[in-house]
Amino acid sequence: MRQTFDEATDPTFGPKHAPLIRRAMADQALDGFLIPHEDEHQNEYLPAANDRLAWATGFTGSAGAAVILKDRAAIFVDGRYTLQVRDQVDAGLFEIRDLVEGGVPAYLQEAAKPGWTIGYDARLHSPESLERLRTAAAKAGAELKPVAENPLDAAWGQARPAQPRAPVVPHPIQYAGEDSASKRARVGASLADRDADAAVLTAPASIAWLFNIRGGDVIRSPLPLGQAVLNADGTARLFLDPAKVTPDLPAWLGNQVTLESPDALPAALAELKGRRVLIDPAQSSAWYFEALKEAGAEIRKDADPCALPRACKNPIEIEGARRAHARDGAALSRFLHWAATEAQASLPDEVEIVSRLESFREATGALKDLSFDTIAGAASNGAIVHYRPTTRLNKRTERGSLLLVDSGAQYLDGTTDVTRTIAMGEPSREMAERFTLVLKGHLALARVRFPTGTTGSALDALARTPLWAAGLDFDHGTGHGVGSYLGVHEGPQRISKLPNTVALRPGMIVSNEPGYYKEGAYGIRIENLQFVTEPADVPGGERPMMAFETLTLAPMDRRLIAVDMLSAEERTQMDAYHARVLAVVGPQVAADVAAWLEGACAPL
Amino acid sequence: MRQTFDEATDPTFGPKHAPLIRRAMADQALDGFLIPHEDEHQNEYLPAANDRLAWATGFTGSAGAAVILKDRAAIFVDGRYTLQVRDQVDAGLFEIRDLVEGGVPAYLQEAAKPGWTIGYDARLHSPESLERLRTAAAKAGAELKPVAENPLDAAWGQARPAQPRAPVVPHPIQYAGEDSASKRARVGASLADRDADAAVLTAPASIAWLFNIRGGDVIRSPLPLGQAVLNADGTARLFLDPAKVTPDLPAWLGNQVTLESPDALPAALAELKGRRVLIDPAQSSAWYFEALKEAGAEIRKDADPCALPRACKNPIEIEGARRAHARDGAALSRFLHWAATEAQASLPDEVEIVSRLESFREATGALKDLSFDTIAGAASNGAIVHYRPTTRLNKRTERGSLLLVDSGAQYLDGTTDVTRTIAMGEPSREMAERFTLVLKGHLALARVRFPTGTTGSALDALARTPLWAAGLDFDHGTGHGVGSYLGVHEGPQRISKLPNTVALRPGMIVSNEPGYYKEGAYGIRIENLQFVTEPADVPGGERPMMAFETLTLAPMDRRLIAVDMLSAEERTQMDAYHARVLAVVGPQVAADVAAWLEGACAPL
Repeated sequence: MRQTFDEATDPTFGPKHAPLIRRAMADQALDGFLIPHEDEHQNEYLPAANDRLAWATGFTGSAGAAVILKDRAAIFVDGRYTLQVRDQVDAGLFEIRDLVEGGVPAYLQEAAKPGWTIGYDARLHSPESLERLRTAAAKAGAELKPVAENPLDAAWGQARPAQPRAPVVPHPIQYAGEDSASKRARVGASLADRDADAAVLTAPASIAWLFNIRGGDVIRSPLPLGQAVLNADGTARLFLDPAKVTPDLPAWLGNQVTLESPDALPAALAELKGRRVLIDPAQSSAWYFEALKEAGAEIRKDADPCALPRACKNPIEIEGARRAHARDGAALSRFLHWAATEAQASLPDEVEIVSRLESFREATGALKDLSFDTIAGAASNGAIVHYRPTTRLNKRTERGSLLLVDSGAQYLDGTTDVTRTIAMGEPSREMAERFTLVLKGHLALARVRFPTGTTGSALDALARTPLWAAGLDFDHGTGHGVGSYLGVHEGPQRISKLPNTVALRPGMIVSNEPGYYKEGAYGIRIENLQFVTEPADVPGGERPMMAFETLTLAPMDRRLIAVDMLSAEERTQMDAYHARVLAVVGPQVAADVAAWLEGACAPL
Repeated sequence: MRQTFDEATDPTFGPKHAPLIRRAMADQALDGFLIPHEDEHQNEYLPAANDRLAWATGFTGSAGAAVILKDRAAIFVDGRYTLQVRDQVDAGLFEIRDLVEGGVPAYLQEAAKPGWTIGYDARLHSPESLERLRTAAAKAGAELKPVAENPLDAAWGQARPAQPRAPVVPHPIQYAGEDSASKRARVGASLADRDADAAVLTAPASIAWLFNIRGGDVIRSPLPLGQAVLNADGTARLFLDPAKVTPDLPAWLGNQVTLESPDALPAALAELKGRRVLIDPAQSSAWYFEALKEAGAEIRKDADPCALPRACKNPIEIEGARRAHARDGAALSRFLHWAATEAQASLPDEVEIVSRLESFREATGALKDLSFDTIAGAASNGAIVHYRPTTRLNKRTERGSLLLVDSGAQYLDGTTDVTRTIAMGEPSREMAERFTLVLKGHLALARVRFPTGTTGSALDALARTPLWAAGLDFDHGTGHGVGSYLGVHEGPQRISKLPNTVALRPGMIVSNEPGYYKEGAYGIRIENLQFVTEPADVPGGERPMMAFETLTLAPMDRRLIAVDMLSAEERTQMDAYHARVLAVVGPQVAADVAAWLEGACAPL
């Protein structure tokens, strides 16, 4: 098993570790210290060695922050995590506050005292967030000060896990579709448009994409932690821990790329004196900005120049994604067959469900990793959007309720992410009605055509209007970008209520995952991945339109579809999707599964 | 007649006036001068005395700019005006360039010479745009310099129309619904949330709303040009030309408002020394920022604090809007009756159409003004989105084509804005199909329910997806805010592809006006005004939703509706709308019109 069900922390973490941190703060004459969730690489999923917030507080959510002052402390989480934080953190030690409303700045302004010095690790904060924190501290008469050594790291000491040193390997051209020299030439040439002649790259996904390499430093993503300096002429310096460099790597990188130790990075930045250097403040911490400023570089704050080309998959990557989804769809269909038959009688618990699904994926022989820990939410656990099953929280499925399974796989040829909601026993009419509202939104977003320049924000409402009409909604985004054997959450595109100014472009992969959650009862989510295509013009059409092609191939539970609520168009669309699932998955599965699949994919 | 059909400019304006401007520039030792479209009040419709761009170049569009250098000159327009600018401006004198792509900054960088001094009038530029222009000029080695006297105004001299001095009158409480003291207390109290203790107001619509006064300085809008300083305690200083002050005004304003001459404004700004002063960089020119900076005020750049409360109409204003639309709907229905009967035989020209419509509105006895010059676009003229009929461009309607009529009225109780597309003779199947696609989008945006926090940008696509599916689209926004006996285009809300972060709130009025334009052939637009309501919850709904209620009441041309393309839901919605039109308008019109209306509003 790849997935584990242990809890990495418990509420004693705060009481055990905060005193150690305070002692290390005192050694540096600090009256407080800032602990963001982010690590040195702005990763979403953190290596254990960098999960400082979890070690200091016990909180393991994907966003948050803490402040430890000498006389009090607070933890900051957003609306998704208000229940989880109470479960994981000692609220007697850490005051629980809202990350968004007021957040850390308001706390500093209120809790810091005149003359205090509050430390921060410049490698962990974006320059913008630091500016807000500095202003807030100043209002209280306190000062922010960068530390030379992180006092939390000092307190963690020997107990801290080692930095990950997973081997970095070539990502072959039959998967990447474009060689690194071509990518470097293309991205290098684009720097001129942004008035730059070099770029500092720190996002692991950009390093992986640009050099066609993959690593394993971060769980669930084949990311190599590292940095690079790319020049306008396509030459580059790549900084990777020598312990991670595999024998084939130098030849693979070629003679336009020098491979160096991260120890050489500060000197490399110093050499950028007088050059116009692009760096992304959303991806790179204040430390880089300080280093470049000191070096005398002309800083150009702009989006990571790899982000957009990385998001627009080339034909080889799309072909790979189709293969990966056909394979993954077969594994998932085997699982859905099990869930629709044996599991209906045995009513398994979440741990068993996760294990079964993993074993079907493992059996493909191509699984490199899960793309995230599988979410299996039985009954009321399905209504907790950021739920992960653990031994402690594990719940059995219940007859007459729903099971929500959100999972994905990393294959060399593509990354998958799919959610299916399964009826256990006989679903109620309410469950079917609400599933069907979610489905109507999902189908609308799958079939829409849209012109050049359309953003994901403009399309978000299409997935919600059927729910809105019924007085319902869901509190998460509708779609995120997905990498090609890279991160399962990847920008810059996004389908969301939040404003996003990045237009959708051919080759971009996005998820389409509306949901509905009835607290304490059940959760519904339907998620397929789809990519942006340029379809043939319709007769009489005057403008080229873009559209989506669905990648994910697995049946939806027809027992949850209230057919009377579907329009003729929606029914045709659903039947066509199921016919495609049957055609692609059917030939890959054994006779008993194929027989079941035929029924599962029959016209509604 | 209120509307005229003359053209205010012609292409000789540039050759006649540019030399005069260059001479005035030379008198001030300027090598160039910047001429934005905006005036001192950031008006959309300009008083003739402030339409500097038109006088200098001949161009009368609603957005644009010109630069006159000593050796060359250019005019800048956006995509809407590329045809019009060629028709109105001498292209030998003014190079025609894109306002958006590159715009004025790129031109300055390219055309200015080292050592040159380029003048600008600080009252006409926003601080942000000036910064971009300054940077661009600096790259060419040139310098921007504010002028004490505008050289264009000097050149215009005696020929320049007088500044408008329309009387400023009270706007009675039975229309305003909230007295000025209450508004000032409310807006004043809101300043604390934005860390301010005073606000400088320069938007004429805000002045009109806050003090419950109306004027007539700007054609088609009852706007008084003026400025105000509002204090947190609700007291205020109002600066209005004494020639405009009517006898009742001082008593109406009460003793918390001091009425002063605009000459006293600079001294009043100087007195803001040390205070935290809110001012909106989108509404107020660089001149105000300079004056406040010199005064030693702490500037708080933020949105005009009247904009949001002004946009959310109170129940009395909504009641007024309903009355105004019932009255206007009757006038428009009389016109539509004429268009559907007599005009089908006589095939009138655009000038006659505009005149007829105006006379029906005039006959209500309540018309204060048109809310903009009526757009009547016959056949191919209907495809020109910013078309206004003139004697020169005037076109007869054609059998087998369409007539697009976009018009509105200013009444004391409300401002209207409505577009109807009318078949002249028998429409083709293509015309009906495209009209029906536009209608489907219009209906979707009229019936949507949506939760708190939803912006107009999130809803825009609903009005477009039927067109998109057919490979079609339209190149303008879907909806704009509308004032209450104020401007017909009023923010801050907007339904548009462009990002807008202002959430829709109860009481906001917006237009719903998708369209389709076939160049050289015909134009289609369907526009109703609608306002945001809080409808009763649907059974089973969990969250309060907002919705729209349609204000505009006039039949749509059923000969253009391809009933076979409508869903059952759309047909029901359309029939319900027509039934409402008949119920409200029917009793107001004479027997022959009522008889026709009954047929026009019968179920499809």
